[in-house]
This record gives sequence, C-alpha cells and structure tokens, in this order.
Amino acid sequence: MKNLILIFLTLITMTTSNAQSKQAEVNQKHRVVFQMNSNDPESQKALVNNIQNVKKAWGSEVAIEVVAHGSGIEMVMTEKSAVAQDVTKMIKTGVIFVACENTMAKKNITKAELIENVGTVPSGVAEIIIKQEQGWSYIKG
Amino acid sequence: MKNLILIFLTLITMTTSNAQSKQAEVNQKHRVVFQMNSNDPESQKALVNNIQNVKKAWGSEVAIEVVAHGSGIEMVMTEKSAVAQDVTKMIKTGVIFVACENTMAKKNITKAELIENVGTVPSGVAEIIIKQEQGWSYIKG
Amino acid sequence: MKNLILIFLTLITMTTSNAQSKQAEVNQKHRVVFQMNSNDPESQKALVNNIQNVKKAWGSEVAIEVVAHGSGIEMVMTEKSAVAQDVTKMIKTGVIFVACENTMAKKNITKAELIENVGTVPSGVAEIIIKQEQGWSYIKG
Repeated sequence: MKNLILIFLTLITMTTSNAQSKQAEVNQKHRVVFQMNSNDPESQKALVNNIQNVKKAWGSEVAIEVVAHGSGIEMVMTEKSAVAQDVTKMIKTGVIFVACENTMAKKNITKAELIENVGTVPSGVAEIIIKQEQGWSYIKG
Repeated sequence: MKNLILIFLTLITMTTSNAQSKQAEVNQKHRVVFQMNSNDPESQKALVNNIQNVKKAWGSEVAIEVVAHGSGIEMVMTEKSAVAQDVTKMIKTGVIFVACENTMAKKNITKAELIENVGTVPSGVAEIIIKQEQGWSYIKG
Repeated sequence: MKNLILIFLTLITMTTSNAQSKQAEVNQKHRVVFQMNSNDPESQKALVNNIQNVKKAWGSEVAIEVVAHGSGIEMVMTEKSAVAQDVTKMIKTGVIFVACENTMAKKNITKAELIENVGTVPSGVAEIIIKQEQGWSYIKG
C-alpha cells in the first residue's frame, strides 16, 4: 500500500508540474523573428515601421529579432543602411539585430562596418529556422 | 481509501479531458494567414490564384485570412485594387480580408474606401503574429 | 483492489508513452520548407546560397524541401532555370524539389520540362501549409 501511495504522489507531481509548464508558456510574451534579405531602402523603411507598430501594440511584452542576411545585410551596416538611426534607436529599446556571418564572409564585411550593438550569427537562415523551432512567429520583412 | 479513489478519479478525468482537447486540435481544419504588403498588381493576382488553389484543394476545410498592410492595403481598396471583383467573390466564399488600421491612419484611408465586408485589425503585423501563435500556417503573398 | 491497480498501470503507461513521444520530437532533425515563387535569377541564386549555408550548418541533420510555384516554377525547369546545375547537385545531396501541378497546368508545362528528379505536388501552397502543420519551419526564398 505504501508503494501504491508513492506512485500516486509521483503521478500527481508529474501532472502538476506539467500544468505549470503549460501555464508558463501561455504567459510568455510574444516573440517574432523578422527576415531582411533585401537592400531596397523602401523595404528597410517598411520593416522599421512594422517593428514600431508591434512595439506600439505590445510594448515590452514582445521579443523582436531582426535577421539581416544576403543583400539585406546593408540594413545593419553603418555606411549603407537607409535606416541607421532607427536601428540604433530600436536596439536601445531592446530590439535585437543580428547579421549573418556567412554573408559577411562572402561580401568581405567586417564587424567594424556594422552598426554598434548589432550581433552576428553563424548562419542567418539557420537562425530563422531555430527561432521558429522555439515557437517564435516569423515575418518576411 | 475514499480519498484515494477521489484522487484517482480526478487524475483520470484530467487525463481524459487532456486527450480530448488534443483530438480536437488534430481534427481541426487547415488554417492559413496570407500577408499582402505589396501594391504590385501581379502580386495581388498571384495571391488570388494561390487562394483559389487552396480552396480547390480543401474547400470548406480550410480557414483563410488575408492581412493587407503597408503598400499592400491597396489590394482591399475599392478604387485601387487590381483584383477588387475577386476579393468580393472570395469574401462570399468565406475568405476573411482585413486591413491594418495603422496603415489606414498613416495613409489617411477611411473604412468607406475599403471593399465591402473587408474587416480591420489594429496592427496587421501583430495579427499575423497572433495567428501563428494560434497554430495557423503563414504564407508571404 | 485489482481494478485499482489496473487503473494505476494504465495511467502509468499513458504517462510513459507520452513522455517517449515528446522525446522523439526533440531528437528529430531540423526541417525547413522554402517557397520559391519568383523567376528573378537573383532570387534563385540567393535561394541556392541559403540552402548551401543550411547544409553547411547542419549537414544530414536537416531536411530541406523547396516548393516552386507561380513564376518560381522556372527555377526547376531545365531550359529556364538560372541555377539548373545547382538544383541537380542539391538533389543528389538529398534536397527535395517539388513543382506545383496547378502552376504546370496553368502554364502548360509538362513533367518532361522539369529538371530530372524534381517531384510534383497537387498544390504548391497547400504543400507549404501542410509542412508547417507538421512542424517544419518556413522560409520565403
């Protein structure tokens, strides 16, 4: 009988902790990864606008990451970005910008050419895939 | 012993209702949110075509929502859409079209300028994120 | 008491098998479906590049499917593709390319016009939706 009660308690614990982890997921803030792979200034401005609208809707309750790769890497380059000031401002409000290291190698771009506090990832596309695997929503900028 | 049986019954009920809710998800029809953010007439026609193909494949077993924002809002404006008649027809077959209120405010577009029965959402991008959080598939139109 | 133990065992089995199925999901390799709906040679080259980077990052631990539809079907047509040799090479490394049969019918394209070992699906868009329903990440190429 003692064993029986032990099994009971174990089952109850498993059920309870499972319920808690589900609760945690539900309470988690929104998360979105934006893909920027175009050097079209209008696309860059549209993405800035989209991010501002998401921040307006959810404030600090949304995690935002922008992955710049291919031609889109220009968005996070100090000398080439059409929206450098906006990127700097958004980073200060917690938006994460990362550049693709594959793209940087291919185009001979150094970290020094990136806007301050822009991070890097080994592969921009792999980063977008991983984020989706972790439950982030995806928007093509 | 009475308490023990009560705990048992509670556990069984929890397990059963959990199984039922999973079943409900599995049986649910397909759901897809399309993003339209371009005013290129060819993109609008391609999206109409894509929606028709999805309807052909799944009929009433698919829920379709089109989010028009940025330059793409023209797709749902009576005077500017390249596919106004198609939009009207698709709405009659249950396809949902919504315009972004942020875009409308920025471009001074009134509800009266939208094709009949086109809805609105506070933020088009937030809408696409929410839909993905709810398990909808996402297609960039 | 016998019944009670039977219920116990059933509950334990359900909990265990549930835990196992979750483990299986976690251990599964990465899966990504790319959408190609443009006949722009630069977009085709960028997609080739993206796929190579994903393969470089994860090797055989990633499943990749490219869905070519609309104008993008040219990417998988022997005479029209800007990257025919790359497509052939990637198919040999396990990348799956499929063409949309709706697009083929509309544009009068036969299977013989497709690059060798390119498959077909009834609807390219429905295919992308299904893949997302099955947990694949989605990238607009």
